[in-house]
Amino acid sequence: MTAADIETVLADIAAEMAARPDRGEVATYIPQLAKVDVDQFGIAVAMNDGQLIASGDADIPFSIQSVSKVFTLTLALGKIGDTLWKRVGREPSGNPFNSIVQLEHEHGIPRNPFINAGAVVVTDVVLAGHEPREAIGEILRFIQFLADDETIYIDREVAASEQATGYRNVALANYMRSFGNITHAPELSLGVYYHHCAIAMSCRQLALAGRFLAHGGRHPATGHSVVSAERARRICALMLTCGHYDGSGDFAFRVGIPGKSGVGGGILGVVPGEASVAVWSPGLNSSGNSQLGSIALEKLAKAMNWSIFAA
Amino acid sequence: MTAADIETVLADIAAEMAARPDRGEVATYIPQLAKVDVDQFGIAVAMNDGQLIASGDADIPFSIQSVSKVFTLTLALGKIGDTLWKRVGREPSGNPFNSIVQLEHEHGIPRNPFINAGAVVVTDVVLAGHEPREAIGEILRFIQFLADDETIYIDREVAASEQATGYRNVALANYMRSFGNITHAPELSLGVYYHHCAIAMSCRQLALAGRFLAHGGRHPATGHSVVSAERARRICALMLTCGHYDGSGDFAFRVGIPGKSGVGGGILGVVPGEASVAVWSPGLNSSGNSQLGSIALEKLAKAMNWSIFAA
Amino acid sequence: MTAADIETVLADIAAEMAARPDRGEVATYIPQLAKVDVDQFGIAVAMNDGQLIASGDADIPFSIQSVSKVFTLTLALGKIGDTLWKRVGREPSGNPFNSIVQLEHEHGIPRNPFINAGAVVVTDVVLAGHEPREAIGEILRFIQFLADDETIYIDREVAASEQATGYRNVALANYMRSFGNITHAPELSLGVYYHHCAIAMSCRQLALAGRFLAHGGRHPATGHSVVSAERARRICALMLTCGHYDGSGDFAFRVGIPGKSGVGGGILGVVPGEASVAVWSPGLNSSGNSQLGSIALEKLAKAMNWSIFAA
Amino acid sequence: MTAADIETVLADIAAEMAARPDRGEVATYIPQLAKVDVDQFGIAVAMNDGQLIASGDADIPFSIQSVSKVFTLTLALGKIGDTLWKRVGREPSGNPFNSIVQLEHEHGIPRNPFINAGAVVVTDVVLAGHEPREAIGEILRFIQFLADDETIYIDREVAASEQATGYRNVALANYMRSFGNITHAPELSLGVYYHHCAIAMSCRQLALAGRFLAHGGRHPATGHSVVSAERARRICALMLTCGHYDGSGDFAFRVGIPGKSGVGGGILGVVPGEASVAVWSPGLNSSGNSQLGSIALEKLAKAMNWSIFAA
Repeated sequence: MTAADIETVLADIAAEMAARPDRGEVATYIPQLAKVDVDQFGIAVAMNDGQLIASGDADIPFSIQSVSKVFTLTLALGKIGDTLWKRVGREPSGNPFNSIVQLEHEHGIPRNPFINAGAVVVTDVVLAGHEPREAIGEILRFIQFLADDETIYIDREVAASEQATGYRNVALANYMRSFGNITHAPELSLGVYYHHCAIAMSCRQLALAGRFLAHGGRHPATGHSVVSAERARRICALMLTCGHYDGSGDFAFRVGIPGKSGVGGGILGVVPGEASVAVWSPGLNSSGNSQLGSIALEKLAKAMNWSIFAA
Repeated sequence: MTAADIETVLADIAAEMAARPDRGEVATYIPQLAKVDVDQFGIAVAMNDGQLIASGDADIPFSIQSVSKVFTLTLALGKIGDTLWKRVGREPSGNPFNSIVQLEHEHGIPRNPFINAGAVVVTDVVLAGHEPREAIGEILRFIQFLADDETIYIDREVAASEQATGYRNVALANYMRSFGNITHAPELSLGVYYHHCAIAMSCRQLALAGRFLAHGGRHPATGHSVVSAERARRICALMLTCGHYDGSGDFAFRVGIPGKSGVGGGILGVVPGEASVAVWSPGLNSSGNSQLGSIALEKLAKAMNWSIFAA
Repeated sequence: MTAADIETVLADIAAEMAARPDRGEVATYIPQLAKVDVDQFGIAVAMNDGQLIASGDADIPFSIQSVSKVFTLTLALGKIGDTLWKRVGREPSGNPFNSIVQLEHEHGIPRNPFINAGAVVVTDVVLAGHEPREAIGEILRFIQFLADDETIYIDREVAASEQATGYRNVALANYMRSFGNITHAPELSLGVYYHHCAIAMSCRQLALAGRFLAHGGRHPATGHSVVSAERARRICALMLTCGHYDGSGDFAFRVGIPGKSGVGGGILGVVPGEASVAVWSPGLNSSGNSQLGSIALEKLAKAMNWSIFAA
Repeated sequence: MTAADIETVLADIAAEMAARPDRGEVATYIPQLAKVDVDQFGIAVAMNDGQLIASGDADIPFSIQSVSKVFTLTLALGKIGDTLWKRVGREPSGNPFNSIVQLEHEHGIPRNPFINAGAVVVTDVVLAGHEPREAIGEILRFIQFLADDETIYIDREVAASEQATGYRNVALANYMRSFGNITHAPELSLGVYYHHCAIAMSCRQLALAGRFLAHGGRHPATGHSVVSAERARRICALMLTCGHYDGSGDFAFRVGIPGKSGVGGGILGVVPGEASVAVWSPGLNSSGNSQLGSIALEKLAKAMNWSIFAA
């Protein structure tokens, strides 16, 4: 398929998404997310051959929220390797993103690194040996490096709002702290967590930042290895099985692409060997994943035959 | 990679597996499984180009147990299509194969078609409009057809043992019946369920039976469609996210191939567009999946670069 | 308080209950219960001094259902003593009467003898060494003996209906059987269980049958010991903490009398040293306990200062 | 029974308890509790006729911990009455004292006022309209008033230790705050909570403080009503059904007296119309209740025929 073909596919999807009335509901738990215009939709594809094709609102920065967990997981694995898996599991949770039930039954070990509890443990690993502001800087610079774009920033107003209302995350972190699975003062690990969730990126930037996962772990601009090919595969596997909370199975079933969603309405998708994809539409479905983003990725995967389950 | 190369890969894996001391434990809940020799290991690969390559104990029939759920799911979807999903979910369960807790919390709707409760619902669908013996015959003939092998048989002694000791399955079925999600007398649906779990196949036969999933839904011998390409993809997605009970995430992480395991020690793996694979070794790991079978598939996927997450 | 006073109290309560519009809903899961006239209300008090005072529909037999569990518990304790407590707990369940979740978390040991699962274990104990029909006969004769009334009977139509629709109880029994905590074929233990739940008694008969618990374990007519005084106290303690399913705490809070309710609308209350009480009104509240029966007992306890928590 | 008799009973119990080797384990989560000498045992009985009889280490102050929840519940009910029950339930929890699972399933409403979560809600009610230090002062003065003893004090070192390590309580409070069921900054409500749990009292003082519950709600020294007779009964009912966490049913079964235990090894028991009792021995059983304290109360109840279930 030529670049022109893909451009057509994206434009068609963007046009269809712009027109759909069933856009889901924007997150309302903080004012910064609640006020985002639900009518927006953007999509960007970073092809492994270097092309970057986009359509719709692909240059408007949005709060990447939980999509950031892919990058902090990458950093934490780089820092302590597979010993991470002593502190967090690799299984789909079968529960909503902020459930605390599983933690009680499993002694403070979160089921996987993409539910909130697991992501806070991952952040706690990244924080080790640093001041919080250093850890936040490290995460931001890593994402800037991956996307080749130093304009990517943290929306500190979003971070502050999350921090002011994040009682349930405080509960999760303190609960795990009671089992020794958070090693810093919980408010410090949470502080870093809220800041990386508050990173703002456009679809174009996010697709670029995800390229290494589609490239067998290498940064396409330099060819240098960000992670090993095996680790890239494994991160993709976690995205597929756990990337959409208790909607992960349905996403794998419908779309068939490893992805990670955020409550800001963004989804990062990875088509190994082919492309990385970012979509954004702020309205969410009942599992807390972008309503139109999920549909757009389903259509894209079908049009490009990009399902990893395709023969 | 040539056929000779693959033969070498399989022979190496079979030799290594034959020598490993860490073989897991055979299932002991029925005598027919308890007495199986734990030292056995077989592997067979049905390449999409038509070659069938095998090594080790690839011609010894074993009890396929839950691997049969892939075939009954295929039949049920053929029979009632996506209305099946009103009666069974598509999400990983996060619980052991025989958990009943989730059923209570979700009003008798099993989380997915591969945990025991979900598979009994699927069987109940296949049974509708038939006498139990007809339904059993239909399932057996379907698998014989897929494998082009009429010698595949049901081990009725196994079925009888399962039935005599399956109190927990009786509990699951009656529990769902109380919500109306089993439509026959529970013992009838369970009777059919025990019989399809008791089908005996060799690795060679099982790899052949799974070909349609690697071929975009078509039977390779005839080219006729067994299921649509989309349905083949979706069945593979379910195998990846739910095929190994509460070890599904770990299997996806390590192996990266859609698979379905059975307590008899068999695993059917599907590499879309490439091959279907069957491994068998009767010792199980702590999640109830074949210990050596999982390791062998991990090595095979690495050697052949067959992970669906590979760039 | 004289007998005349109590008669007035009961007559006032019966008159008020007859007039109340908020009567709850009759159980509908079997036709025999569904067709009972919700307008009925009866109450009977067997004073420890030998008087029997009644009002309202106190001579109409109703299905005692779970109230029978007090008598089977008494028989089981007589048979195997405190070893019973290895197979069933003594703690309130915090869950509905037919929950199976707790059983999974606690390896097939029901939380207490008054939830369905626990009562089936108790029945399994009573059944040991008998044919089912003998066990049923023993239970019936025990209740007839306690009430000095051989006309008390089993409504076999009710038992048959329970058996035909009791999928959830079949699930509970088979689930416990899988842990070895039911020792007979589950359908046999359930058969006895359904029959003792189907015993029909009037308020007058039920109040008489409960006298031994208010008399320190002695049968008031003969003075002979049915159970020791300690065991009588302990059965009363279980009635108070567990006798009304997940409404037990509320019943203790409002009424303050050990009681056991049944889905047929009956409640047996025990005022140690004072009286045994039976009320009946078939409409149930949201916890499955008699709506007017609970209110009537609250009023009676207040009028007579019979709360066991009263100074 | 004369006062001399009771003195003999208490002396015998104290002597037997002093000699027993099975003393349980002291709580170790804070150093102040961990260092308490496990060999201590004290008991005091405040008879309704005004006598105060004690034996053993009845004048040594200990940390009353959760026993304080009886007094804060009394204050909260005095402040907002039965509207309290919109924010906390009245049912036994069936779970350990610090479980968070139930909160998730029931939307942040704790099952009863005596589990940690429920007691924090109660404290949040007492705090309303006050500065934390005022609320702490009010609780302390209330207990001093009930015991007629202004020397009762708060061990601020204990409160500080609790606060420094109480991650799980922070989790509970923030979790409930996320549902709106804590109305202050969680650390403020917890601060008050830790301080009232850190009140130090001797058995003698505690028995005196509990008298109003045995006296139908009246302060025996003045005859003035602390709570209504009905409320006193209801608080006793809650103590019986919920006062010993997931050992409440067993305590009711064995002892038969409304009681509230604390992790410091104290238990306050109430025999309505007869006496209030305080026992203390710092070693705990597996449910977190005083091992010897429970046994001593069982022996006392038997010797005095004080079970509320006694005929």
